[in-house]
Amino acid sequence: MAKGASISGFPEWLPQERVVEQCVIDTVRKVFELNGFIGIETRAVEEGSSLLKKGETSKEIYLLSRLQEVGHESDTPLEERLGLHFDLTVPLSRYVVENSGKLTFPFKRWQIQKVWRGERPQEGRFREFVQADIDVVSDGDLPEHYEVELPLVMVSALEELRAFGLPKATVHANNRKLSEGFYRGLGLTDVEGVLREIDKLDKIGDDEVCKLLVSECGASQSQAKACLELAELSAEDGGQLREKFDRLCSAHGIAQDGEAYALAKQGLETLATIVDESAAIRPGSVIADLKIARGLDYYTGSVYETFLEGAQSLGSICSGGRYDNLASRGNRKYPGVGLSIGLSRLVSYMLHTAGARATRVSPATVLVAVWNEHDRLQSNRIAASLRARGISADVSPDAAKLGKQIRYADKLGIPYVWFPAEQAGDETLDGGQSTASGKAGGDEVKNIVTGEQCAADVDSWLPDETYARQDVIVE
Amino acid sequence: MAKGASISGFPEWLPQERVVEQCVIDTVRKVFELNGFIGIETRAVEEGSSLLKKGETSKEIYLLSRLQEVGHESDTPLEERLGLHFDLTVPLSRYVVENSGKLTFPFKRWQIQKVWRGERPQEGRFREFVQADIDVVSDGDLPEHYEVELPLVMVSALEELRAFGLPKATVHANNRKLSEGFYRGLGLTDVEGVLREIDKLDKIGDDEVCKLLVSECGASQSQAKACLELAELSAEDGGQLREKFDRLCSAHGIAQDGEAYALAKQGLETLATIVDESAAIRPGSVIADLKIARGLDYYTGSVYETFLEGAQSLGSICSGGRYDNLASRGNRKYPGVGLSIGLSRLVSYMLHTAGARATRVSPATVLVAVWNEHDRLQSNRIAASLRARGISADVSPDAAKLGKQIRYADKLGIPYVWFPAEQAGDETLDGGQSTASGKAGGDEVKNIVTGEQCAADVDSWLPDETYARQDVIVE
Repeated sequence: MAKGASISGFPEWLPQERVVEQCVIDTVRKVFELNGFIGIETRAVEEGSSLLKKGETSKEIYLLSRLQEVGHESDTPLEERLGLHFDLTVPLSRYVVENSGKLTFPFKRWQIQKVWRGERPQEGRFREFVQADIDVVSDGDLPEHYEVELPLVMVSALEELRAFGLPKATVHANNRKLSEGFYRGLGLTDVEGVLREIDKLDKIGDDEVCKLLVSECGASQSQAKACLELAELSAEDGGQLREKFDRLCSAHGIAQDGEAYALAKQGLETLATIVDESAAIRPGSVIADLKIARGLDYYTGSVYETFLEGAQSLGSICSGGRYDNLASRGNRKYPGVGLSIGLSRLVSYMLHTAGARATRVSPATVLVAVWNEHDRLQSNRIAASLRARGISADVSPDAAKLGKQIRYADKLGIPYVWFPAEQAGDETLDGGQSTASGKAGGDEVKNIVTGEQCAADVDSWLPDETYARQDVIVE
Repeated sequence: MAKGASISGFPEWLPQERVVEQCVIDTVRKVFELNGFIGIETRAVEEGSSLLKKGETSKEIYLLSRLQEVGHESDTPLEERLGLHFDLTVPLSRYVVENSGKLTFPFKRWQIQKVWRGERPQEGRFREFVQADIDVVSDGDLPEHYEVELPLVMVSALEELRAFGLPKATVHANNRKLSEGFYRGLGLTDVEGVLREIDKLDKIGDDEVCKLLVSECGASQSQAKACLELAELSAEDGGQLREKFDRLCSAHGIAQDGEAYALAKQGLETLATIVDESAAIRPGSVIADLKIARGLDYYTGSVYETFLEGAQSLGSICSGGRYDNLASRGNRKYPGVGLSIGLSRLVSYMLHTAGARATRVSPATVLVAVWNEHDRLQSNRIAASLRARGISADVSPDAAKLGKQIRYADKLGIPYVWFPAEQAGDETLDGGQSTASGKAGGDEVKNIVTGEQCAADVDSWLPDETYARQDVIVE
């Protein structure tokens, strides 16, 4: 990372690292657009009243004040002050309500932007980072098939990012309806309470959760045990999921003709479809994992968390779900389903753990050499001709010794050095190993990686495919 | 603009408007990269001490405070507080100094990011906007040829933007050395003072400026008159510029063998080269305009302002210059030359004055119809096959009547509707004018713009070139 991470939590990349981030952003955007998502960008600021709504994160807001307001910031109530958005969901819901008359629903949107969290500085936590979100928002009913499609789009995007060193990602999906139907079928009524305790499984373990279910949620020992059994259920295909779930229902006396089972069944079918359809992209890319409870008190249908193989410590790198109360105005409701990737953490992982690196620092494919400052125009014209044909070209900073010009190209990773005609051949390359043997009247171009040099016509020469583009590779 | 410009000065685009902004950003980036500029992104925040350095704009800063700090913001000295950057130059100079050991100089960088100005809300002023900058920064000497190249790169970028309705742009260039040499040749010593008065020409006119030159800068009537004559000088080619300037020197007794003339001549030659080389891109794209004085007290060499034909009221849309004191550390100096475009204002102009619009709201080329919800998987697979071949595809939100599905495509501007095989032909299109006459066993695709419909194979079908991509046109 650039030494410029000189303010804790505000990462900044060196040019060669930024190439990786830019490639990641371009790739994710490409996948979103291929899937018909519409790009929007919202302003970086929201009113305090919007930002403070979502209780949980309200402590992580950066508020703004104009320099003139310094000293009397508190004259303005918090609700009316501006703050930086901490996610892209709050802005989306405001945007949808404000522009509802001008949008076509269901509104499928992608958005890749920086977000800010006014956290206390601490190791490894970003206070500024790039998030990539997709959501589908409906005006009225939101068909359940979007709960199937959205995680698949993210799986496609994450699959593309494996070229940059991202390990295999697996989406773990659950469904609020499934859990709720099961709990109700058991006779439990404090559904939010049960979900809250189940969410603690990883931290405090089965026994403690079991005790809490009994003491806090009014569950009997056997009800509590059933809840834990549900949490242990996972499946890689829909058939398996249905079978395991139905077996669990039978074991705990949940009748298949009851209302509770009907509710659970709705969630079960959505979940089974997600798992089966994702197999077409990569078997096992989405698994049903009924332990996933984070946010289930908030989400109203599917919920997703995503983990990277061998990088569990990163936690979930792509999360989301269905929220029927995303936005509303009057009696109009806008339910939504969406997922969000924290890109900066992924880029950091790719760079520092996975060994992703740019093939070159400069986007230029060619550096045009300059023999004499008064011949610079000739070099500029060559560069302009190459650019006109879509070949990125730089011109040497000065008419230094050829060896120095080549070293400049080499430092920037520019693979080709172009020797303009006429003066070519006047000089021996640094170290005397090879010679810029251009004949008067003919340009030559040298691949400084392979050492190959040949005559070249500015109107027809093409770089070798391998060296044509700035790219990212994994070492 | 989206009704969402609900906070004055924070523009937000509707999806179809955002397409234009995105195309503008992509185009500008492409030109920068073709010219070998390296992309970086800096964090949105800088320390108060950096932001407050540049006196002139210090009043337009947004400072940040964490929610927990509300009420005791002033415990932290301004210099240590974080604020949003108001340009991309302050961050660049910090970035270069912090990472100097890891950069290759001369460092040619592009940067397209949002910047924020904590101005009082007023009509037509953006407080958040996108800026696109290019700069070349050197460690030590910065060759003058970069003063020639940088405006030409911007001219190329602006030339590309004409496809989106941008009027012809003309860069007006001047040079600090030229002006200073001329003033000194006249015997004037308060160069900054003279430049400051000359900068008022457009506002208060010749007579007033003349008076001020006499009263404030110790000029005689004839010296003042000579300064005004210099400001009137403009030229579209280098020869003309040299001739006019030398004539003016003779007329005012500035000897060509003096030191002052030598200084002026250095600026004159740079300026002449800029004007002549730009003619290769478009004659008259850069003119020498010796009236340009804004920033000449700050810049140390070339200075640039850019105006749009027929849109003078926008003021300069792309400005910059050479500043030998961009950054320094110890006795190490980093001179730079750069230009900056305020993209948001240009996009606003394109949308609201020039009539630029997206050819479609959705990036999707194809909407795959759905006959029945239980056949959705079939439609999903068709979409997946198209995407695998790089064709952006959406799937119908629901298995509504075909007419409704087509209207959904139409509203989003999606040009093709794909009818999966089997059930095709079951239904008459809305209005009964045409029929989805797909044969059982064969997919069909309909261009809903032309009405043309034909059999199509998901593994080989290609959209007509005209309808293949989301694009921007000018009406």
